This record gives sequence, C-alpha cells and structure tokens, in this order.
Amino acid sequence: MRSLGIFALQGGEVQRMKTLQVVMTVLILFFLASFATAQSQPQLNLMPMPASVQPGTGQLSINQSFSVTNTGFHDASLDREVQRFVTQLSRQTGIPFRSKPGSTPTLEIHADRGREAVQKLGEDESYQLTVADSGAKLTAPTSLGILRGLQTFLQLVQITPAGFAVPAVTIKDQPRFPWRGMLIDVSRHFIPIDVLKRNIDGMAAVKMNVLHWHLSDDQGFRAESKKFPKLTGMGSDNMFYTQAEIHEFIAYAHDRGIRVMPEFDIPGHSRSWFLGYPELSSGAGPYTLEGGGIDPIMDPTRESTYKFLEKFIAEMAKLFPDPYFHIGGDEVDGKQWDANPKIQEFIKSRGMKNNQDLQAYFNQRLEKIVAKNHKTMVGWDEILHPDLPKTIVVQSWRGQASLAAAAKQGYRGLLSYGYYLDLMWPAARHYAVDPMADAAATLTPEQKNLILGGESCQWAEWVTPENIDSHIWPRNAVIAERLWSPQEVKDVASMYRRMNAVSYDLEWLGLTHNSARIEILQRMAGSTGVDALRVLADVVEPVKDYNRWDDAKDPIDFHAPLTRMIDAVSPESDTAREFGDLVQTFAQSGYKDQAAEAQIRGYLTTWRDNDARLHPLLEESSLLQEDVPLSQSLSALGAAGLQVLDYLDKGQTAPDSWKTQEMAVIDQAKTRQADMLLMVVAPVQRLVEASAGQSQHN
Amino acid sequence: MRSLGIFALQGGEVQRMKTLQVVMTVLILFFLASFATAQSQPQLNLMPMPASVQPGTGQLSINQSFSVTNTGFHDASLDREVQRFVTQLSRQTGIPFRSKPGSTPTLEIHADRGREAVQKLGEDESYQLTVADSGAKLTAPTSLGILRGLQTFLQLVQITPAGFAVPAVTIKDQPRFPWRGMLIDVSRHFIPIDVLKRNIDGMAAVKMNVLHWHLSDDQGFRAESKKFPKLTGMGSDNMFYTQAEIHEFIAYAHDRGIRVMPEFDIPGHSRSWFLGYPELSSGAGPYTLEGGGIDPIMDPTRESTYKFLEKFIAEMAKLFPDPYFHIGGDEVDGKQWDANPKIQEFIKSRGMKNNQDLQAYFNQRLEKIVAKNHKTMVGWDEILHPDLPKTIVVQSWRGQASLAAAAKQGYRGLLSYGYYLDLMWPAARHYAVDPMADAAATLTPEQKNLILGGESCQWAEWVTPENIDSHIWPRNAVIAERLWSPQEVKDVASMYRRMNAVSYDLEWLGLTHNSARIEILQRMAGSTGVDALRVLADVVEPVKDYNRWDDAKDPIDFHAPLTRMIDAVSPESDTAREFGDLVQTFAQSGYKDQAAEAQIRGYLTTWRDNDARLHPLLEESSLLQEDVPLSQSLSALGAAGLQVLDYLDKGQTAPDSWKTQEMAVIDQAKTRQADMLLMVVAPVQRLVEASAGQSQHN
Repeated sequence: MRSLGIFALQGGEVQRMKTLQVVMTVLILFFLASFATAQSQPQLNLMPMPASVQPGTGQLSINQSFSVTNTGFHDASLDREVQRFVTQLSRQTGIPFRSKPGSTPTLEIHADRGREAVQKLGEDESYQLTVADSGAKLTAPTSLGILRGLQTFLQLVQITPAGFAVPAVTIKDQPRFPWRGMLIDVSRHFIPIDVLKRNIDGMAAVKMNVLHWHLSDDQGFRAESKKFPKLTGMGSDNMFYTQAEIHEFIAYAHDRGIRVMPEFDIPGHSRSWFLGYPELSSGAGPYTLEGGGIDPIMDPTRESTYKFLEKFIAEMAKLFPDPYFHIGGDEVDGKQWDANPKIQEFIKSRGMKNNQDLQAYFNQRLEKIVAKNHKTMVGWDEILHPDLPKTIVVQSWRGQASLAAAAKQGYRGLLSYGYYLDLMWPAARHYAVDPMADAAATLTPEQKNLILGGESCQWAEWVTPENIDSHIWPRNAVIAERLWSPQEVKDVASMYRRMNAVSYDLEWLGLTHNSARIEILQRMAGSTGVDALRVLADVVEPVKDYNRWDDAKDPIDFHAPLTRMIDAVSPESDTAREFGDLVQTFAQSGYKDQAAEAQIRGYLTTWRDNDARLHPLLEESSLLQEDVPLSQSLSALGAAGLQVLDYLDKGQTAPDSWKTQEMAVIDQAKTRQADMLLMVVAPVQRLVEASAGQSQHN
Repeated sequence: MRSLGIFALQGGEVQRMKTLQVVMTVLILFFLASFATAQSQPQLNLMPMPASVQPGTGQLSINQSFSVTNTGFHDASLDREVQRFVTQLSRQTGIPFRSKPGSTPTLEIHADRGREAVQKLGEDESYQLTVADSGAKLTAPTSLGILRGLQTFLQLVQITPAGFAVPAVTIKDQPRFPWRGMLIDVSRHFIPIDVLKRNIDGMAAVKMNVLHWHLSDDQGFRAESKKFPKLTGMGSDNMFYTQAEIHEFIAYAHDRGIRVMPEFDIPGHSRSWFLGYPELSSGAGPYTLEGGGIDPIMDPTRESTYKFLEKFIAEMAKLFPDPYFHIGGDEVDGKQWDANPKIQEFIKSRGMKNNQDLQAYFNQRLEKIVAKNHKTMVGWDEILHPDLPKTIVVQSWRGQASLAAAAKQGYRGLLSYGYYLDLMWPAARHYAVDPMADAAATLTPEQKNLILGGESCQWAEWVTPENIDSHIWPRNAVIAERLWSPQEVKDVASMYRRMNAVSYDLEWLGLTHNSARIEILQRMAGSTGVDALRVLADVVEPVKDYNRWDDAKDPIDFHAPLTRMIDAVSPESDTAREFGDLVQTFAQSGYKDQAAEAQIRGYLTTWRDNDARLHPLLEESSLLQEDVPLSQSLSALGAAGLQVLDYLDKGQTAPDSWKTQEMAVIDQAKTRQADMLLMVVAPVQRLVEASAGQSQHN
C-alpha cells in the first residue's frame, strides 16, 4: 500500500491515494482477523510476516516429483530466480528433484509483466500465494512480486511426520514501506564481494530491497575510479572493488530484487580521498589511512574541488544505475575549517554565519552536480537545510523527530536511528523502533507519505569478513519485518520464535552467522574441543552501544586481529533469554513449577561445573586469558543459583549473611569483563532475592 | 628414501639404491631416537609424522609482522603456493599480516630447482625445516619439497599463552612411498569441481600426491568427450565435467603437488557408456542409468570396440597429462558374455579357456592402445595376467597377498585393500594396514621396490556433495601418514591425538567434515535446536563394511535423498572412543578413580535424560522417526550405567535379577537400528558386568 501511496503523491493523484488508504485500512482489519485465526493453527515461521495470512486445511507435500511451471511473463532474470529457488529448496530438504515429464507441476507461477531494467523505488512487489494439498499457485502483477513470493514459499516449507510439506494457506502480501535497506560499511574493514553476495541473498530472503553501499570513509576508498586512480591506488591498502566487479555485483543484486545505492561520504569522513589527492582537503597533509590528529575535511571553498567532483560523480553516476546517490554529509566537526584562515575568510566574505552554512553551500553545489547526472541526492540528517531542493532524501541517524522535522518541511526521509546493528542491541529493541512512531506519529497523512522506510546499518569498525554475518543476522531480519509487515505485527515472543527459525533458513543460503562463531572459538581453543568454551560464549554478549571504544586506543588500529571472544559471540544471547524466560515462568508459578525448576537446575549445574573444565584451556591460550574472570563469575552464579533451589525445595529462607555474600558475587558478575557482559546475572539475582523472601511473582 | 629407490631401480643403478638403503636405516634410527626425545617435549600435532623431528628450545612467534622471503628458485606456481600459505596462516590465526618494509622475514624458503611440468612419480618431495626463536628456514632440492614443508609449518603453528607460535624444531623429511593417492568415485554420485578442489586442498595438507579420478562407472559417465559426445550426453544425467573444467582442475591439483590420474572402468562397470553407444556392449540394450537386470559388459570381440577405444583413449590421453592411465578392469561377472553365442564362439575359436582369458585378451589390446599414447596402464587386481607387459601397474583391492604375487612376477603395485573409506572402519583399523606387511613382508628388496604405495578409496554409493567430506576426513589423514611416514610410526593413541588436531586444521581449508554434520542434523530437526539430537548422533556409527546394502532395494536408487541420521554421523564416534577409554581407566583403577567416575557419570546422566528431551522432536520429523528405538536404547544404557556406579559407590554387588534384566537391555542396544550401531554398548556392558563382580582389571 505504501508503495502505491508514494506513486500517488508523486503523480499528484490525491484522490487515488485516499481510495488506497481506505483499501489499506480494510486490508489491515482483514489481516488482524486472519492473524487471530492463525494463532490456533500450526505456527508459520514467516519473517517478515505477510500482510494477510489465511490458513487452510491440509498440506502440500514436497517430494522428489516437485516442479515449477511458469504460465506468465518470463525473462532470463526470472528464469534464473526460479532455478535458484529450486536449488535452494533442494538444498534445504536434501531432496534431488526429478519430476517425471508430463506430471502436474507442484507450483505454478504467473507474473502479469516484467520488471524495470533499473529497479524503481516503489515498483510493485505485491504477490498472492495459494497453497492447497493439490498444488500451489503464486501470482503477481510483476516478476518482482514473484521473487518476494518465492521467498515466502521457501519459509513455509517444514519437516513434518509425513515428510517435507507446505501447510495449506492463502497469503496476500505487499510491503508497508517501499525503501527497506541495509547499509554495509566496507571502508573500516574491507568486505569482499563474495561476502556481500551472500548478504544480498540474506536480504532477498527477508524481502529487503536496497543495499546502501558505504564505499568510502576515512579508513579506505573502495570503488575503482578510472578518472582518479589514486583514490584506490593510494587510499585503499589495495583492497577495493574494480568497476567490472561493481558492475557484476549490481546485476547480482538486481536479479534478487535489490537496488544498490552507493555512498561516497563527503565533505567529512573522507581522509582516504586525500592520500592521492591532498589538494582536495582543507589542511596541508600529508595523510595516512591510519589517521591521527584532527579529522580532515574536504575544502568547499576551491573551485578545483567542484571540478574534481563533477568528473568523479559523472563517472560514478554511470557506474551505479540507481537513481539515488548518497553523499554522506554526516559528522563534519569543522576543526580543519576553523584552522584554515582562507576558509574562514571565505565564510565571512560570503556572509555565512558558521561552518554549518559552509556545509550547506557545499551541499547545494553538490546537489546541482548530482542532479545534472540525473540522480537524486541522499544524505544524513546534517544535510537538511532550507536552501536545498525538496527532491533530496534525508536519512536520519538521529531519530524520528529529525525525520518528522524533515517531512514537515516537505523532505522525504529514511529512518536508520534504532537500526544500527553495530550497537549490539537485542533484536527486540530494534523491533520496537517504528519509523511512524513518536514525532512521526503526529504527521499529516501527506507528510507521512514522505517517510519512505528505513535502513539497518552495519558499520564496520569491529567486523571482519569472518564475523560480519553474525553481526548482521539474524537481527537484521526483524528490522526487515518492521519495514515490510503491517505496523500491528509486533508480538515479541512470536518475533523471537520466527527469527530463530529464519536464522536456520539463512544458514542454508550460505550465511555464516552461526557456523563462524564456532570457527572463531575453535581458533581460540587451538587443537582441543570447544564444548566448554561454548557454554561460556553462549551466555555472554558484547558491551552495548559504543562502550567497546572505551578500551580502544585512539586512533583505532583497523588492521589488528579481531579474534577475541567478543568477536565470536552473538550480539544477543539466546541461552540467556531462554534462561530468563524459565526463571520468569518459575517465579510466576510461585516457585512451584517443577519442569521449569529442572531445566533451571540443568543450566545452573552446567555453569557451576564449567570453570573447572574450561580453566586449563583459558590459561593455555593468549586469546582466552582475559576470559578467566568471566568463567569464574559464571560458575559462581551457577553455584549461587543451585543453592537457592535447595533453599526453595526445603521451604527455607536463605540466611542474610549468605544473601549478602551472594549479592557481592552478583555485583562482580555484573561488571564488564573483556568487553563483555554476563547475560544471566539478572535472572540469578532474581532467584537469590526470592530465596531471601523478597520475590515478586511476575 | 623410497622415491629415490625407485629412481635407482628404473635407472638400473643398483649400487646407488643399496647405499640409499643404508642411509635410510640410519635415518630411521635417528628418527626413533628423536621421536623418543620428543615425547618429553610439547607434543607436535603433525600428520603425517615427518621422518625425523628434532625438538629445539624456545618458539617462533607468529604475529602481524610475519613475512616470507624466497631466496631460491621461484616460478609462478611456487609464488601462488606461498601466497596461499600466507592466506591460510592468516585465516588460521586470524591475524592480518602487515610486515614493515625492511624488517627481517620470519620464514625463509629456498628451493634449489623447480618442478617437472607434469609431476613425475618419484619426483623429489624431500625438505628440511629449521625453526628457531629468531626465524625459520625451509630448504628443499625442488619446489615440490617446499610445498610439503609449508604444510608442515602450518601444522606446527599453535596457540600458546604468549600468542600464536611455532616451537623450535629441526625436521628432515621425505616420503616412504612415492605414490600416495586417494580415489574419488564421481560416477555413483556426481561430485562438483568445487568439492573436489577442497578435497585436493585436504590431500595437499596431509602430503598425498595422487588423485585417482574414477570418472566412469555403471551409474554415470562424467568426463566430456568431444569425439563421442553421447558418452556424457546420454550417460551422465547432464552432470559431468567439461574439458575446460578438467583442464583447469588438473592445473589446480598440479599447483598443490598432486597428480591426477583418470580411470575409465572397462570392460565391466561400464553401463553408462552404452546409453549413447549400445553397439559397444555385449548385449542388446537399450540401457538406462538406473540399471536392473544383468550387468552389461563391453564386447571385446568386435574390432569396432577397439576402433572406438583408439579414438577415445587418444583424446583422453591428451586431456590428462599424467603418464598413468587407469582402465579399471575389476569385477567383470561375465554373464553378458555367457549369454552371447557370438562371444562364446569367439572364445572357442581363439583357443581361450574362459571369460578370464577373454578379458586378458581385451587388456592386452587395450594396453597397446594405452602404450601407443605414451601412457602406462593401471588396473585393478583382475588385470594381472602373464601375457601383459611388466610396465603395467596393478592396484590391489584384494590385499597384500595379491600385491606380493604381482611383485613376484615383476609387476609394480599399489595397495588399496584396507583403505576403503566407504567401509566405515575406525581410523585405527586403516592405520594398521601396511603395504609391506603380511605377504609383502617376505618379498626380496627388489620386489619390495615394486610396491609404489597405495590409495584410499572413496566409493560414492552413499555420499553426496554435502556429506562426502565427512566420509573422507579426518580418517584419510591416517592413511596419508601410513604412506608417508616411516613404518615404525604406529602408536595409536598418538595417531588419534594428532588426527583430531589435523581435523580442526582441515576445516580452516574449507572442508566441511565437521560443519556439514550439524547442517544435516539441522535439516532433520527443522526449526528447532539440535543439541539433544547431537547427543544421540555423537555416539552412533553407520553399520560397517557393506551391511548398509542389506536394507537397500536393488537396483539402488542413486537419486534418492541421503538425509537420514546415518548420512549425518561420523564413520567413527569420538565420544564413544573417549567414553570407552574412560571406562578402561576406571576399570584399571579397580573402579576407584574418582575423576574418571565423575566424567563417566556425566556422560551417563546426559544419555539417560536425553530421550525425554529428544523424543518429541523424533516424532515430529519423518527423517527422525526411525531413530526412536536408538534414542530409547541410549537412555536405557545411561540408566543402567548410573545404577552400576551407585552399586560400586556403595560397595555392593548387583543382584542377578537386575543383571539379567540389564543384559537384555544391552542385547537390544547391540542390534542394528536405522542402519546404525550404538557405540557405547560395550563399555556400558563392561560396567554392568563389573557390578556383578565379573570385572577384569586389565
């Protein structure tokens, strides 16, 4: 609906938009009704949840005779997609398909028409999927909708007592927002094309449709320019994408229904430009990628800067067919401008008040260059300035208020605040962030239509090709759901259940978010098993927000190994969440639920005994020595928790002295260790407090 | 030494050979002395164990400044190898190397000369590696020796309390046998090139040097022939290697010091040829890849057969540069010959006695064609016939007796008996098989020199690209050791310790023998965790030898999914071996070793409780239902074992009635279930017998 709404606005057909809003409301009500019905049916592991799901009766068997027929539009791109779909289904089920000639196909697909050669913002992605025990049918106005529907079909496949099957269901689906993206920073750590490709596959699986490619920053310039070869020649440590690779990658993404928008971040975050072209900077140079000193900024006062950008942007505008072009524009601290008398003179002579006005001047000139190349300029919050035309798009890392402010001035916007994957937040926290919430909720319908969607952001200070997948997945799937599914889809328990299921699916695509964790632990452990190490790694999380930076030396060495436990562990501990839920259940039962208690006891026993198993290994490995206190804390928590269960079982209250002693253990366990947090402290504390007669039942 | 010996024999320099044998003896004594010394040093995880290892003092740190310099011969192939070595070391350690210009290199390599363009049998693979805390030096007569030495260096790297390091050591090394191969059958199940490539990497890591590529068999013809396109066009289900792929693959293997010898198995095992060319067969046809009925055989009585083979072998001889060409020749059951009156008439008219004589006639003619193309013919045991020239090589699947018989007649031979990976034997059983043992031990030195080495065999009836690695690795590494290391290296405990270490190393190369197991279990489990499933899978093994075939329908459907638990589990259970060792330790202590008892109790408790955790999942998945009795048996064993520990702890003898009852449980647990065996039955039985006062303290 949202995508159609945007078309309406751009075309000025307000009446059509209003009609659609009514239709949308009806659909949402329909969705809520069908969702309620679905609760009593076998749960479907769909993420993002479709707009409408109507369960049926029976199931469609997936066996060796599975086949697909296309009765509608087809082209080479759709044919490839169907082939990939069949390969993926075969991989997921382990079944080599061999349908007999002449047999009835299992799945019929039918698109009315093809796709745009360059995928458009708001291009129709809707589809309808009907599955009965006799067969399935997937229809869509465009082949892009077929792509989305095939991913839904893959998620519906499950193992049953009677083999692999898809439950009977009718799904009508379309996205809530037309712009559902992920930013990947490839500057701070270079991420090779094959790693990007498997992440494109993951994005397609959860129906995201924009890769925002953060191609340059202080630490590296990653896209080949033939006009300015020193950009990568001196600014990339020889780690960059050739134009041929970029071209092929964009085609790869297009095949999967994903736009690729480049970002070249200027005038700040641009040190890597100045190794080859120091004359672009506002300071004297020379510059190194390692950095240090004040952050260099591009010089907006020289005409030569614009001549350079004219040529550069013309070249990149051809290389990247997407109509949107991101120029960054964030975090210009202005110190190099302050330190340059010529620049300060320029500001005064033009009647500008400050550096912000200078950046606005720069952005205005930049926007003209971008527009001349038939592109729409996109930038971060800071570019918002009344002198810029209403065609630009503002990406907000500051929040819905910033987005709403832009919309009120008539600017289109994207939300990234709340979707920063590098902050190590739990999935539920990202899931709770809605582009239309808070300040945005008070916008007029017309203003709301200016909010195009959002983007998750994978900044790459602390990731390598080895562990980037585990920083993105599976949490990125819940952001994808927030941007695709109706706003009303927000049950957290359902989200976690479905996220865990989709996480397994994503491994079948080749993503390594689960497998690489074991690999990294294995490296730390050397030639021994990692079972005991996993017990510890499974209950810790990295410190949150930018707290990891506290211990890091400035400037950060982006070439240092990322091989510590913090680099291996998941941003969110499934085990800790499950344990917390168990303690919650146990507490709600008045500490009487024996099944919950048995499971809690199992965890606590494993933890209590783990340090004895693990300690020798921790001492033997330079990469693990820092984790000794963490392991000791976990075992202490296990012992404390077991003591509580004994008190509870005997109906005793723990002595105050014991409690005081254990609270000291808990306080110790709460402290950050080796840049990580033990995530089972809070539920153990709850048990300890309960043993002392202070429990709250719920 | 062996390789030099062969050169000597071929050159007729008998005196030189004798001198070398003396040197060999001295080296072996030296090795044994140094090996004894090494026992008190930190154990090195080398496999194959080098001929001589002399430990030093201190260690060489591997850090960001690591670099390699080559002071000797170099060419593009060696440069690529060094680059791969550095990449692999970086991957294993997680360290991005950034040595400063002008700093001292960590590792110096020096080869006196290059390699042959087509790798020769017996080409010098020796090397010497010296590691001190100040640096390492690797020298070799040829760049092929450098390849071998770099793999040793990689295996020496370990994590220590002071970071990654290589212990100081002096290694002098060369292979015992010049032919150390692995056969991979790609006919029964097609194995894509990328899967073969990662197995080539694995072979290189354990210093194997021949890939025996079993390219055709009844179920599929896998190598493109441009002269006879219907071979793959009708005989491959469209799963085959193009000539371009083959060419590139051979170069890939050559870069890693591995010869590629093709096998086209005739006149039996050749049904796939006859779909496109039924006139080659001894029956009427038509034929299908699925088979059924009697096994078709090539017709050796028609001249047109030889005309076909002339053209075909000429084409393949060009495609495969290796001087050895394997023609199969095994298991010709002769039924189709018996059923063909013209063929029987041919036998009589030529004065032949039987089908064996007919095959010998065929082989003689075949050998001439092979020789005309400047290749040496290799075949299985059955080709051995006095009419064939002494240049051929006989590969024995029947045993050392067969090999010795050939050697006595002056034929060179290879041992594969005892190295069949598809028989699901434990590593120790393969490890115990020596080409020079049994009948071969009685050969004269000259005859012994005719035994070139051996090959492991990975027949592909029960593997897919997904699980082939876990059927090959890590067991193949111990066969590689048997063929490389001195005969005296045979301590089984040391072998298992080193095999487990090298198994982790192999995963860094991209082999999936560990990771794919989890993947397959995950498929069976659907969207839930696999922890409880792993507990079961970790203590079972596939049935041994060809017992899996008992339950298989004839003809076997080679397109059926291989997605059962038997397809996921390891051929050898590490857990069962460890548990058996623990029970052994416990028994030897007179059932007093408390540490062993605690570990035994831990295992037994997990097993006892596992069926309750696992049962719901088993019922929900069609792929797991057959495993219900197995899971119940494991829990029953766990309960029985725990009861024994209780009796022992109390100093009680178990009642006879209890023992009778538990022996019934044990008998049940011993039966084959879902084509698998529970491998912890024997140690639990030992406990039960001990509880009844029947223990043997040995």
